[in-house]
Amino acid sequence: MKIVSAFNRDERLQQQLQKDFPNVQFTFYKNMKELGDSIIDADVLLTFGEDVTEDIIDSAKKLNWIMVFSAGLEKLPHEKLMERNILVTNARGIHKIPMAEFAFAYMLQYAKQLETFNKQQDECIWNRQLPLRELYGSTLVVVGAGAIGSQIAKYGRTFGMKTIGINSSGKPVEEFDEIYPMSELKSALTMGDYIISVLPSTKATNGVFQKEQFEAMKNSAVFINMGRGNAVNETDLMEALENDELAHAFLDVYQVEPLPTDHPFWKSNKVTMTPHLSAISDQYVPRAMEIFRHNLTVYLNGGNDYINKIDLRRGY
Amino acid sequence: MKIVSAFNRDERLQQQLQKDFPNVQFTFYKNMKELGDSIIDADVLLTFGEDVTEDIIDSAKKLNWIMVFSAGLEKLPHEKLMERNILVTNARGIHKIPMAEFAFAYMLQYAKQLETFNKQQDECIWNRQLPLRELYGSTLVVVGAGAIGSQIAKYGRTFGMKTIGINSSGKPVEEFDEIYPMSELKSALTMGDYIISVLPSTKATNGVFQKEQFEAMKNSAVFINMGRGNAVNETDLMEALENDELAHAFLDVYQVEPLPTDHPFWKSNKVTMTPHLSAISDQYVPRAMEIFRHNLTVYLNGGNDYINKIDLRRGY
Repeated sequence: MKIVSAFNRDERLQQQLQKDFPNVQFTFYKNMKELGDSIIDADVLLTFGEDVTEDIIDSAKKLNWIMVFSAGLEKLPHEKLMERNILVTNARGIHKIPMAEFAFAYMLQYAKQLETFNKQQDECIWNRQLPLRELYGSTLVVVGAGAIGSQIAKYGRTFGMKTIGINSSGKPVEEFDEIYPMSELKSALTMGDYIISVLPSTKATNGVFQKEQFEAMKNSAVFINMGRGNAVNETDLMEALENDELAHAFLDVYQVEPLPTDHPFWKSNKVTMTPHLSAISDQYVPRAMEIFRHNLTVYLNGGNDYINKIDLRRGY
Repeated sequence: MKIVSAFNRDERLQQQLQKDFPNVQFTFYKNMKELGDSIIDADVLLTFGEDVTEDIIDSAKKLNWIMVFSAGLEKLPHEKLMERNILVTNARGIHKIPMAEFAFAYMLQYAKQLETFNKQQDECIWNRQLPLRELYGSTLVVVGAGAIGSQIAKYGRTFGMKTIGINSSGKPVEEFDEIYPMSELKSALTMGDYIISVLPSTKATNGVFQKEQFEAMKNSAVFINMGRGNAVNETDLMEALENDELAHAFLDVYQVEPLPTDHPFWKSNKVTMTPHLSAISDQYVPRAMEIFRHNLTVYLNGGNDYINKIDLRRGY
């Protein structure tokens, strides 16, 4: 039984796994390239899911299971994996805490003008004449009312925000004061002071935010995209910001990543950018490892109660 | 019956007061200097409490009541006011929401490295190799477990932080997992990942944070002062930061305000500064006005159930 990992892990973690599962042979590599031919006789592959090609699956003759240490599955060779009937599990669910914290980091940075205060400090300026806002009493619209969206709404409620969620069905979700189906997105957007997209990348979410969605927003609205870049028409967003259709955008994800250096987002003072890491924290790997250890125990015992077993036909 | 205000108020608010209290004569001024001789026959003075001198009280022959639109009373001429038996009320209690939000703005800016990401954006740098932290699972120590401190702890609990409070008695306070008396401050500080002072300015709080308190903190600790500047020995703090006794300081208040431009805080990359406004928001005046309107009704009806009536001997 051989398990190979295609992302760099600290030695202590590897040793701990080896100690707890002594009958398994663990070999850890920095990435898929360094892993190389070790895939040929591996039973299990640990990966972030970004560099697994059809060719790699073809060469991995014994592969039974891929544990993806992220939530994104879009870059996996779905057809090939289904053909080979390879089990796929992922780390879905571990992103909600760091991402909900990031959402509040963005909103509070905006409400409290921290970016401007940092610049004032650089210039030794003591200036108190800046409009300061509160999250309290404002309206939060979360597009994608799943696990991550609900965590954001939970924090929002404690902060005294009104919480509105959008999901595909329109069925009520705990933590949200109101839920609307995607078909009513535009009218829901008109209510938002802070609008957060946590939509995954699927065919249905492609270009959900276009000209007319940005026009529907309040001129004072803050738009945050921390789901996937494909949900946003970036040209329309840039135009809407320039036309004051909304006040500011916080973006963690983009159509193309890394974002090309000539993209207008970089230089806009109405866009605040982070490089696709709202889910990252020092707790990420420990939490993902808990899922993996559970699933490895299931696998070794021939059971079937895997956490986050993926149905590749549905895509999640 | 004449009420004068010594801080600029928007006209709409003045008109609304005049409409709701037609038998009162309201006159609004930008500050005490502009108010000038109008104080002589005024019954009531509205002020931020920063520019009321003994001479002004002496000239205010008819003055019965001062409504302070802040929580700070330290600059009022206490002796003179007691001598004249002038009623003092303040806006205590309206600061807890904006200040608790500010505390989380600071902590999340730190945990999520937003200051660094802002700089990276300025330079078109896509760099994901920064250590990102979570508030979840960390320990929050709030020094001053009153109304503001409890609001911070309430948010902290929702974020999954352990909440430790310090007050003068050590008596339990809701929202805090543990409470210690001031005499055990140093040992409580050793537990904090985030340490927040919301201490008011009294004789007892003078220099509470000195060399030995900073040395007691974890090297990774973040210290936030949003109470009053007198609680901190600034030379000791600067030295402790330089010696890595703690990791970072967020400061809203200082021994001298505005902070002199040659103060080392301005240029330190371990200090993030804001100019004494964590309590300020666009909701500040509306909330303070509610207290004033209640108290004015009590005053006009000759009642005694004032909100926030100050005992000047105690100082709060």
